[in-house]
Amino acid sequence: MAHAHDLADALAALDAHYQAMPPVATMGLAVAGYDGARLRLHAPLARHVNDKGCAFGGSLVSLMTLAGWGLVTLRLHDAGIDADVFVADSEVRYLQPLFADLAAEAELDEGVDWDAALADLRGRGRMRVALVARVRLPDGVVAAQAHARFVAVAKG
Amino acid sequence: MAHAHDLADALAALDAHYQAMPPVATMGLAVAGYDGARLRLHAPLARHVNDKGCAFGGSLVSLMTLAGWGLVTLRLHDAGIDADVFVADSEVRYLQPLFADLAAEAELDEGVDWDAALADLRGRGRMRVALVARVRLPDGVVAAQAHARFVAVAKG
Repeated sequence: MAHAHDLADALAALDAHYQAMPPVATMGLAVAGYDGARLRLHAPLARHVNDKGCAFGGSLVSLMTLAGWGLVTLRLHDAGIDADVFVADSEVRYLQPLFADLAAEAELDEGVDWDAALADLRGRGRMRVALVARVRLPDGVVAAQAHARFVAVAKG
Repeated sequence: MAHAHDLADALAALDAHYQAMPPVATMGLAVAGYDGARLRLHAPLARHVNDKGCAFGGSLVSLMTLAGWGLVTLRLHDAGIDADVFVADSEVRYLQPLFADLAAEAELDEGVDWDAALADLRGRGRMRVALVARVRLPDGVVAAQAHARFVAVAKG
Protein backbone atom coordinates (compact mmCIF):
# COMPACT_ATOMS: atom_id res chain seq x y z
CA MET A 1 0.00 0.00 0.00
CA ALA A 2 1.40 3.36 -1.06
CA HIS A 3 1.81 6.56 0.98
CA ALA A 4 -1.26 8.73 1.47
CA HIS A 5 -0.36 11.26 -1.21
CA ASP A 6 0.53 8.49 -3.67
CA LEU A 7 -2.86 6.93 -2.94
CA ALA A 8 -4.62 10.25 -3.54
CA ASP A 9 -2.73 10.59 -6.83
CA ALA A 10 -3.62 7.03 -7.84
CA LEU A 11 -7.32 7.58 -7.08
CA ALA A 12 -7.30 10.89 -8.97
CA ALA A 13 -5.69 9.14 -11.95
CA LEU A 14 -8.27 6.36 -11.76
CA ASP A 15 -11.12 8.89 -11.64
CA ALA A 16 -9.66 10.73 -14.65
CA HIS A 17 -9.38 7.41 -16.48
CA TYR A 18 -13.05 6.64 -15.74
CA GLN A 19 -14.29 10.10 -16.76
CA ALA A 20 -12.39 9.92 -20.08
CA MET A 21 -14.66 7.06 -21.20
CA PRO A 22 -17.87 8.49 -22.76
CA PRO A 23 -20.19 5.78 -21.38
CA VAL A 24 -18.74 6.30 -17.89
CA ALA A 25 -18.77 10.11 -18.01
CA THR A 26 -22.59 9.97 -18.21
CA MET A 27 -22.85 7.75 -15.11
CA GLY A 28 -22.10 10.40 -12.48
CA LEU A 29 -19.57 7.97 -11.01
CA ALA A 30 -17.38 8.92 -8.02
CA VAL A 31 -14.54 6.99 -6.39
CA ALA A 32 -15.74 6.62 -2.79
CA GLY A 33 -12.77 4.88 -1.23
CA TYR A 34 -9.93 2.37 -1.51
CA ASP A 35 -8.23 0.72 1.44
CA GLY A 36 -5.76 -1.39 -0.53
CA ALA A 37 -8.12 -4.36 -0.68
CA ARG A 38 -11.56 -3.00 -1.56
CA LEU A 39 -12.52 -0.27 -4.04
CA ARG A 40 -15.86 1.52 -3.59
CA LEU A 41 -17.67 3.51 -6.28
CA HIS A 42 -20.84 5.59 -6.04
CA ALA A 43 -23.33 6.84 -8.62
CA PRO A 44 -26.63 8.73 -8.21
CA LEU A 45 -29.85 6.76 -8.75
CA ALA A 46 -31.28 9.58 -10.90
CA ARG A 47 -28.82 8.72 -13.70
CA HIS A 48 -29.57 4.99 -13.47
CA VAL A 49 -33.28 4.66 -12.87
CA ASN A 50 -35.30 2.18 -14.96
CA ASP A 51 -38.97 1.97 -15.91
CA LYS A 52 -39.85 0.69 -12.43
CA GLY A 53 -38.18 3.53 -10.51
CA CYS A 54 -35.25 1.41 -9.31
CA ALA A 55 -31.70 0.95 -10.59
CA PHE A 56 -31.31 -0.41 -14.15
CA GLY A 57 -29.62 -3.84 -14.21
CA GLY A 58 -27.17 -2.72 -16.90
CA SER A 59 -26.08 0.15 -14.67
CA LEU A 60 -25.49 -2.22 -11.76
CA VAL A 61 -23.29 -4.42 -13.96
CA SER A 62 -21.46 -1.41 -15.38
CA LEU A 63 -20.68 -0.07 -11.91
CA MET A 64 -19.57 -3.48 -10.62
CA THR A 65 -17.42 -4.01 -13.75
CA LEU A 66 -15.81 -0.58 -13.32
CA ALA A 67 -15.16 -1.30 -9.63
CA GLY A 68 -13.47 -4.58 -10.54
CA TRP A 69 -11.47 -3.01 -13.35
CA GLY A 70 -10.42 -0.17 -11.03
CA LEU A 71 -9.43 -2.56 -8.25
CA VAL A 72 -7.09 -4.52 -10.54
CA THR A 73 -5.72 -1.28 -11.99
CA LEU A 74 -4.98 0.14 -8.51
CA ARG A 75 -3.42 -3.09 -7.25
CA LEU A 76 -1.17 -3.23 -10.33
CA HIS A 77 -0.25 0.42 -9.74
CA ASP A 78 0.62 -0.49 -6.12
CA ALA A 79 2.86 -3.24 -7.54
CA GLY A 80 4.52 -0.84 -9.98
CA ILE A 81 3.26 -2.67 -13.08
CA ASP A 82 1.82 -0.97 -16.17
CA ALA A 83 -0.75 -3.27 -17.84
CA ASP A 84 -3.96 -3.23 -19.82
CA VAL A 85 -6.87 -4.69 -17.83
CA PHE A 86 -9.85 -6.43 -19.48
CA VAL A 87 -12.96 -8.10 -18.12
CA ALA A 88 -13.12 -11.70 -19.41
CA ASP A 89 -16.38 -13.06 -18.02
CA SER A 90 -18.85 -12.59 -15.19
CA GLU A 91 -21.80 -14.17 -13.46
CA VAL A 92 -24.28 -11.65 -12.16
CA ARG A 93 -27.19 -12.15 -9.78
CA TYR A 94 -29.82 -9.44 -9.35
CA LEU A 95 -31.21 -10.08 -5.89
CA GLN A 96 -33.15 -7.00 -4.73
CA PRO A 97 -34.47 -3.86 -6.44
CA LEU A 98 -32.45 -0.80 -5.42
CA PHE A 99 -34.40 2.43 -4.87
CA ALA A 100 -31.39 4.41 -3.60
CA ASP A 101 -28.09 5.74 -4.92
CA LEU A 102 -25.73 3.07 -6.23
CA ALA A 103 -22.74 1.97 -4.13
CA ALA A 104 -20.54 -0.78 -5.57
CA GLU A 105 -17.54 -2.45 -3.97
CA ALA A 106 -15.02 -4.88 -5.49
CA GLU A 107 -12.37 -7.08 -3.92
CA LEU A 108 -10.41 -10.23 -4.78
CA ASP A 109 -12.54 -13.36 -4.66
CA GLU A 110 -11.96 -15.84 -1.84
CA GLY A 111 -8.86 -17.98 -2.30
CA VAL A 112 -7.19 -15.75 -4.90
CA ASP A 113 -3.40 -15.74 -4.63
CA TRP A 114 -2.55 -12.21 -5.75
CA ASP A 115 1.20 -12.76 -5.47
CA ALA A 116 0.98 -15.79 -7.75
CA ALA A 117 -1.06 -13.73 -10.25
CA LEU A 118 1.57 -10.97 -10.14
CA ALA A 119 4.29 -13.59 -10.74
CA ASP A 120 2.38 -14.73 -13.85
CA LEU A 121 2.14 -11.18 -15.11
CA ARG A 122 5.84 -10.51 -14.48
CA GLY A 123 6.99 -13.87 -15.87
CA ARG A 124 4.65 -14.43 -18.79
CA GLY A 125 3.26 -10.95 -19.41
CA ARG A 126 -0.28 -12.00 -18.58
CA MET A 127 -2.44 -12.78 -15.54
CA ARG A 128 -6.00 -13.77 -14.79
CA VAL A 129 -7.66 -12.94 -11.48
CA ALA A 130 -11.11 -13.57 -9.97
CA LEU A 131 -12.99 -10.76 -8.23
CA VAL A 132 -16.29 -10.36 -6.48
CA ALA A 133 -18.26 -7.12 -6.71
CA ARG A 134 -21.45 -6.18 -4.93
CA VAL A 135 -24.03 -3.42 -4.84
CA ARG A 136 -25.75 -3.15 -1.46
CA LEU A 137 -29.00 -1.62 -0.30
CA PRO A 138 -28.63 1.21 2.26
CA ASP A 139 -29.22 -1.37 5.04
CA GLY A 140 -26.33 -3.54 3.80
CA VAL A 141 -28.36 -6.29 2.12
CA VAL A 142 -26.80 -7.29 -1.21
CA ALA A 143 -28.87 -6.00 -4.15
CA ALA A 144 -26.63 -7.41 -6.90
CA GLN A 145 -23.49 -9.51 -6.95
CA ALA A 146 -21.00 -10.31 -9.70
CA HIS A 147 -18.22 -12.86 -9.77
CA ALA A 148 -15.88 -11.81 -12.56
CA ARG A 149 -12.55 -12.77 -14.06
CA PHE A 150 -10.23 -10.04 -15.28
CA VAL A 151 -7.17 -10.41 -17.47
CA ALA A 152 -4.17 -8.09 -17.32
CA VAL A 153 -1.61 -7.91 -20.13
CA ALA A 154 1.73 -6.19 -19.47
CA LYS A 155 2.41 -3.18 -21.70
CA GLY A 156 5.49 -2.72 -23.85
CA MET B 1 -47.04 -12.52 -34.57
CA ALA B 2 -49.16 -9.38 -34.95
CA HIS B 3 -50.10 -7.46 -38.10
CA ALA B 4 -47.49 -5.14 -39.56
CA HIS B 5 -48.95 -1.94 -38.14
CA ASP B 6 -49.41 -3.56 -34.72
CA LEU B 7 -45.75 -4.59 -34.88
CA ALA B 8 -44.69 -1.05 -35.78
CA ASP B 9 -46.76 0.26 -32.85
CA ALA B 10 -45.23 -2.30 -30.48
CA LEU B 11 -41.68 -1.42 -31.57
CA ALA B 12 -42.43 2.31 -31.24
CA ALA B 13 -43.80 1.69 -27.73
CA LEU B 14 -40.70 -0.35 -26.85
CA ASP B 15 -38.42 2.39 -28.14
CA ALA B 16 -40.33 5.01 -26.11
CA HIS B 17 -40.03 2.77 -23.05
CA TYR B 18 -36.26 2.51 -23.56
CA GLN B 19 -35.77 6.24 -24.14
CA ALA B 20 -37.74 7.09 -20.97
CA MET B 21 -35.00 5.47 -18.85
CA PRO B 22 -32.21 8.03 -18.18
CA PRO B 23 -29.33 5.50 -18.41
CA VAL B 24 -30.71 4.21 -21.71
CA ALA B 25 -31.44 7.64 -23.20
CA THR B 26 -27.68 8.35 -23.13
CA MET B 27 -26.84 5.14 -25.02
CA GLY B 28 -27.98 6.24 -28.48
CA LEU B 29 -29.93 2.98 -28.69
CA ALA B 30 -32.13 2.14 -31.71
CA VAL B 31 -34.46 -0.80 -32.25
CA ALA B 32 -33.06 -2.40 -35.41
CA GLY B 33 -35.57 -5.20 -35.97
CA TYR B 34 -37.86 -7.85 -34.55
CA ASP B 35 -39.07 -10.89 -36.47
CA GLY B 36 -41.18 -12.43 -33.70
CA ALA B 37 -38.28 -14.53 -32.40
CA ARG B 38 -35.21 -12.27 -32.32
CA LEU B 39 -34.92 -8.63 -31.26
CA ARG B 40 -32.00 -6.59 -32.56
CA LEU B 41 -30.71 -3.33 -31.04
CA HIS B 42 -28.00 -0.96 -32.27
CA ALA B 43 -25.91 1.72 -30.56
CA PRO B 44 -23.03 3.85 -31.85
CA LEU B 45 -19.51 2.97 -30.70
CA ALA B 46 -18.77 6.65 -29.97
CA ARG B 47 -21.13 6.57 -26.97
CA HIS B 48 -19.64 3.32 -25.66
CA VAL B 49 -15.91 3.50 -26.23
CA ASN B 50 -13.54 2.57 -23.38
CA ASP B 51 -9.94 3.49 -22.58
CA LYS B 52 -8.69 1.07 -25.26
CA GLY B 53 -10.80 2.48 -28.10
CA CYS B 54 -13.20 -0.49 -28.17
CA ALA B 55 -16.64 -1.05 -26.66
CA PHE B 56 -16.90 -0.85 -22.86
CA GLY B 57 -17.90 -4.19 -21.28
CA GLY B 58 -20.63 -2.55 -19.21
CA SER B 59 -22.17 -1.15 -22.38
CA LEU B 60 -22.17 -4.60 -24.00
CA VAL B 61 -23.98 -6.06 -20.98
CA SER B 62 -26.42 -3.15 -20.87
CA LEU B 63 -27.30 -3.56 -24.55
CA MET B 64 -27.67 -7.35 -24.24
CA THR B 65 -29.79 -6.93 -21.09
CA LEU B 66 -32.02 -4.38 -22.85
CA ALA B 67 -32.37 -6.69 -25.87
CA GLY B 68 -33.42 -9.54 -23.59
CA TRP B 69 -35.81 -7.36 -21.62
CA GLY B 70 -37.30 -6.03 -24.86
CA LEU B 71 -37.68 -9.50 -26.34
CA VAL B 72 -39.69 -10.73 -23.34
CA THR B 73 -41.74 -7.52 -23.32
CA LEU B 74 -42.57 -7.85 -27.05
CA ARG B 75 -43.42 -11.55 -26.77
CA LEU B 76 -45.73 -10.81 -23.82
CA HIS B 77 -47.33 -8.02 -25.85
CA ASP B 78 -47.85 -10.50 -28.71
CA ALA B 79 -49.55 -12.79 -26.17
CA GLY B 80 -51.76 -9.97 -24.90
CA ILE B 81 -50.31 -10.05 -21.37
CA ASP B 82 -49.35 -6.98 -19.33
CA ALA B 83 -46.47 -7.81 -16.98
CA ASP B 84 -43.40 -6.32 -15.32
CA VAL B 85 -40.19 -7.88 -16.64
CA PHE B 86 -37.00 -8.16 -14.55
CA VAL B 87 -33.56 -9.61 -15.22
CA ALA B 88 -32.75 -12.22 -12.56
CA ASP B 89 -29.23 -13.37 -13.40
CA SER B 90 -26.78 -13.66 -16.27
CA GLU B 91 -23.51 -15.22 -17.31
CA VAL B 92 -21.51 -13.03 -19.65
CA ARG B 93 -18.47 -13.90 -21.73
CA TYR B 94 -16.41 -11.16 -23.36
CA LEU B 95 -14.76 -12.90 -26.30
CA GLN B 96 -13.41 -10.28 -28.72
CA PRO B 97 -12.80 -6.53 -28.54
CA LEU B 98 -15.34 -4.63 -30.66
CA PHE B 99 -14.05 -1.63 -32.60
CA ALA B 100 -17.33 -0.98 -34.44
CA ASP B 101 -20.88 0.11 -33.66
CA LEU B 102 -22.72 -2.16 -31.23
CA ALA B 103 -25.33 -4.60 -32.55
CA ALA B 104 -27.02 -6.86 -30.00
CA GLU B 105 -29.57 -9.60 -30.61
CA ALA B 106 -31.62 -11.61 -28.11
CA GLU B 107 -33.72 -14.75 -28.51
CA LEU B 108 -35.06 -17.56 -26.33
CA ASP B 109 -32.36 -19.96 -25.23
CA GLU B 110 -32.33 -23.47 -26.71
CA GLY B 111 -34.95 -25.75 -25.26
CA VAL B 112 -37.14 -23.01 -23.77
CA ASP B 113 -40.85 -23.86 -23.85
CA TRP B 114 -42.42 -20.43 -24.28
CA ASP B 115 -45.98 -21.78 -24.14
CA ALA B 116 -45.26 -23.47 -20.80
CA ALA B 117 -43.78 -20.22 -19.48
CA LEU B 118 -46.89 -18.31 -20.62
CA ALA B 119 -49.06 -20.90 -18.87
CA ASP B 120 -47.11 -20.26 -15.66
CA LEU B 121 -47.63 -16.53 -16.01
CA ARG B 122 -51.36 -16.91 -16.70
CA GLY B 123 -51.89 -19.53 -13.98
CA ARG B 124 -49.60 -18.36 -11.20
CA GLY B 125 -48.96 -14.74 -12.14
CA ARG B 126 -45.23 -15.34 -12.63
CA MET B 127 -42.86 -16.88 -15.15
CA ARG B 128 -39.11 -17.37 -15.58
CA VAL B 129 -37.51 -17.69 -19.00
CA ALA B 130 -33.95 -18.22 -20.26
CA LEU B 131 -32.59 -16.08 -23.10
CA VAL B 132 -29.35 -15.82 -24.99
CA ALA B 133 -28.07 -12.46 -26.21
CA ARG B 134 -25.05 -11.76 -28.37
CA VAL B 135 -23.06 -8.84 -29.72
CA ARG B 136 -21.29 -9.68 -32.97
CA LEU B 137 -18.35 -8.17 -34.81
CA PRO B 138 -19.16 -6.81 -38.29
CA ASP B 139 -17.95 -10.14 -39.77
CA GLY B 140 -20.41 -12.10 -37.62
CA VAL B 141 -17.96 -13.44 -35.02
CA VAL B 142 -19.43 -13.24 -31.51
CA ALA B 143 -17.78 -10.46 -29.46
CA ALA B 144 -19.82 -11.00 -26.29
CA GLN B 145 -22.49 -13.45 -25.23
CA ALA B 146 -24.90 -13.51 -22.29
CA HIS B 147 -27.12 -16.28 -21.04
CA ALA B 148 -29.73 -14.62 -18.86
CA ARG B 149 -32.88 -15.50 -16.93
CA PHE B 150 -35.75 -13.04 -16.88
CA VAL B 151 -38.76 -13.06 -14.59
CA ALA B 152 -42.15 -11.64 -15.58
CA VAL B 153 -44.81 -10.80 -12.99
CA ALA B 154 -48.38 -10.19 -14.15
CA LYS B 155 -49.77 -6.73 -13.38
CA GLY B 156 -52.97 -6.03 -11.51
